[in-house]
Amino acid sequence: MHFTKMEGLGNDYVYVNCFEEKVDDPQRLARLLSDRHRGVGSDGLILIGPSDKADFSMAVYNSDGSIAEMCGNGIRCVCKYVYDNHMTESRRISVETLAGIKYLRCISGDRRQSIVTVDMGAPEIGRDRMTVDAALTEKMLEERIDVSGKMISFIRVSMGNPHAVVWLDGLDVACVTDGEKTMSIGALMEKHDAFPSGTNVEFVRVIDRDLIQIRVWERGSGETMACGTGACAAAAACMAKNYTNNVVTVQLGGGELHIEYDRNKKTINMTGPARKVFDGQVDIFSQEE
Amino acid sequence: MHFTKMEGLGNDYVYVNCFEEKVDDPQRLARLLSDRHRGVGSDGLILIGPSDKADFSMAVYNSDGSIAEMCGNGIRCVCKYVYDNHMTESRRISVETLAGIKYLRCISGDRRQSIVTVDMGAPEIGRDRMTVDAALTEKMLEERIDVSGKMISFIRVSMGNPHAVVWLDGLDVACVTDGEKTMSIGALMEKHDAFPSGTNVEFVRVIDRDLIQIRVWERGSGETMACGTGACAAAAACMAKNYTNNVVTVQLGGGELHIEYDRNKKTINMTGPARKVFDGQVDIFSQEE
Repeated sequence: MHFTKMEGLGNDYVYVNCFEEKVDDPQRLARLLSDRHRGVGSDGLILIGPSDKADFSMAVYNSDGSIAEMCGNGIRCVCKYVYDNHMTESRRISVETLAGIKYLRCISGDRRQSIVTVDMGAPEIGRDRMTVDAALTEKMLEERIDVSGKMISFIRVSMGNPHAVVWLDGLDVACVTDGEKTMSIGALMEKHDAFPSGTNVEFVRVIDRDLIQIRVWERGSGETMACGTGACAAAAACMAKNYTNNVVTVQLGGGELHIEYDRNKKTINMTGPARKVFDGQVDIFSQEE
Repeated sequence: MHFTKMEGLGNDYVYVNCFEEKVDDPQRLARLLSDRHRGVGSDGLILIGPSDKADFSMAVYNSDGSIAEMCGNGIRCVCKYVYDNHMTESRRISVETLAGIKYLRCISGDRRQSIVTVDMGAPEIGRDRMTVDAALTEKMLEERIDVSGKMISFIRVSMGNPHAVVWLDGLDVACVTDGEKTMSIGALMEKHDAFPSGTNVEFVRVIDRDLIQIRVWERGSGETMACGTGACAAAAACMAKNYTNNVVTVQLGGGELHIEYDRNKKTINMTGPARKVFDGQVDIFSQEE
């Protein structure tokens, strides 16, 4: 079976072109291939296939074989893959995912790396699920909860999945200067009663009106270096508070994403790198669990 | 650049055939390729090349770019690679390494996995560096040292590199039942004054005269799942104490190795699996540090 290893901000998947390859049991295959010592090694498996609703479909499997609805870093690589392999002549494509149809644009690139923009949909801000524009006039955006004796202010944002955005300058000095303490707040907030389905937590430092830095506590995964929806949620909250402009660079552990709020469509565009690492050929019958 | 990913007991390397490929800066390449998210992902890089002293040469680079003298799991894969790729028609080959010329034999195998025997050289047992046969008659093989208040008995073995073999039934119950406590003894022994160059430590449980189980604390790496010289040292010490026969199966976290003492040559043969995972093609100019 032919495959391509690709990554975005260090979030790496094995990509298989299902126009040419047949995969019988993708969940098992994801487990086998993801093994970093005895398999190819990856965060999971992404199958690129046909769709009757969009130009292509994308199916994402995590390294444990479970199904993921969407992956922001992964879908940028799908756009690079189909363009580089002449499966489309257009730089604008649509991709069917379990989280709906996503629209992408390959801005620039070479054999090695491309820059891809994804329309991530409309952020919903606060308990009343407002647009960024509506939230700008709202005085009561923040909520406050007790996190093991500490009162923490945050803004709730949905990007399809739940987020809680916390500003580092709202925390006490001991938390901010000790990364581990910050992350332990993330772990406690994830499971807090205020979030019936759990939450992702973004800790934000606003550098200026064009640049923010974030650390992300991902629901179910702990701290991660590259969370696309987390970058969007943090940027949307900063825009809603008028801390930044409507175009902002977000620095994460794994690299940078550029987030832009589209005033007309009310949606967030995320722009970032997609990189091909290598092509491979694996005999899937030689892989054992 | 074409490469092959192979593994033995989960110890995985990127293999490059330097009869066909040219590698300018292997230490840098090892760092780039070993990255498990942005590169191929491996424990390191192994270059297979010509030799004027042996059939082939092997150069081993760790994932941090440093040079390793030898790798028991890696050299078995070299034997599979040259045989499967028709670079030799013989199942017996010699390989030049920084630890001397090693002799190997490909016993059986298919496209997927081969079983390979490596002559690992003569173990030197005890402070007087005896053969296994001489050590069998020796009453004072064990040494005793104080490891933070606990007296630990061990047998010193050299396989070219230093080892200290500790039997679990010589430790108190609390240590044996708590894996972390056992390993903390390994960490302390590694740096103990009794070992001027540090030491690897093997904790051994003798199941019967044909089977032992070991856990290995590797000098500089901590606990590892697959240490070839550690398996040889532990087996040699068991044979020297007449706890086992001269052919013994060693169970490690990563799998099994079969160790045989050759009475005539006084050397240890190690037999274990070598597996091809996949073939790949990577543009090395697209890899960045």
